[in-house]
Amino acid sequence: MYTSILQNISKHISLDKEEADYFMGLIRFKEVPRKALILREGQACNYLSYILLGAFRVYYVDEHLREITVKFAIADSWVTDMHCFLNDKPANLYIEAIDESCIYQVSATNLEKLLHHVPKFERFFRILSQYAYTREQFRNIENLSLSAEERYNSFLETYPRITQVATQKQIASYLGITPEFLSVLRKEKTLRRIS
Amino acid sequence: MYTSILQNISKHISLDKEEADYFMGLIRFKEVPRKALILREGQACNYLSYILLGAFRVYYVDEHLREITVKFAIADSWVTDMHCFLNDKPANLYIEAIDESCIYQVSATNLEKLLHHVPKFERFFRILSQYAYTREQFRNIENLSLSAEERYNSFLETYPRITQVATQKQIASYLGITPEFLSVLRKEKTLRRIS
Repeated sequence: MYTSILQNISKHISLDKEEADYFMGLIRFKEVPRKALILREGQACNYLSYILLGAFRVYYVDEHLREITVKFAIADSWVTDMHCFLNDKPANLYIEAIDESCIYQVSATNLEKLLHHVPKFERFFRILSQYAYTREQFRNIENLSLSAEERYNSFLETYPRITQVATQKQIASYLGITPEFLSVLRKEKTLRRIS
Repeated sequence: MYTSILQNISKHISLDKEEADYFMGLIRFKEVPRKALILREGQACNYLSYILLGAFRVYYVDEHLREITVKFAIADSWVTDMHCFLNDKPANLYIEAIDESCIYQVSATNLEKLLHHVPKFERFFRILSQYAYTREQFRNIENLSLSAEERYNSFLETYPRITQVATQKQIASYLGITPEFLSVLRKEKTLRRIS
């Protein structure tokens, strides 16, 4: 049952059986139906989630009530509102399942226990956070240097399966364009493939 | 001499004298004149730098040879091309001193030694990376949800002193606008302050 999350961890650190058992005792399993929120703005952000199956969308609602898709999170990755999780503050972000999903969750309290009891998890989360940082930085560079069409192509490469579960509106807000413009980009892409 | 970098570290972990001495033996001090590059595209990215004094600009040169300012790094913060530093790849980014600067540098090899010998540094760099990640994510949200004027105001709040050392062109490319448009924003701001 726990194979996948332990495989994810074993990419960066090795756990013996006792450490793996201890970790497994600190996490909880949860099924999340499509469209359910595992976090909403203003809520306490107490959990870091590992996505075993499914996909999530992290979004922000701005003062004009527009939903800005901050990121998509796919199977075998971790998701939370990191700023609020770290600082024990109410969430700024929403996290919504965009597919039938299964997750493991570790609470902030249990994570501290884990880091204290099995300090090598510091290394794991250090590496994980460094990769998360470089991905966000890369996206910032793309937003500042690529055209909308190039950003859409890069999105398709990074998230080939998300187009099957996310709406046009959600993808458009991730790319910083209108759904109408995304529709034009998609049609041009299809036409080019046919011709 | 090493007070400031040790204070930076003591924000997140406590070192005893032996650990502090060991760390100090692994870093090197460097003066960096204004406009000098500590990293350029294509170079091996072997160092993580702590800025003791001064300021740096991290930038990317796109295929049209435009300089995109990825971030500004100020005193008491850390800077590198993280993607390349982590993966031992040639740098994608340039890092330029935009003021007379002093830095401490730790090489990738020495960092691994440090993490091995004093594992609590895993915690330090885990926390540092998580904050770096949330800052990049926050900037992505701002880029997608705020107007150019709002982004400029947020920039002034985050980097109040950078306007004294960065050029209009460098700040404009950080905000994703033209220098001409930044000039308009600045003039409007001044007029509003006067009236």
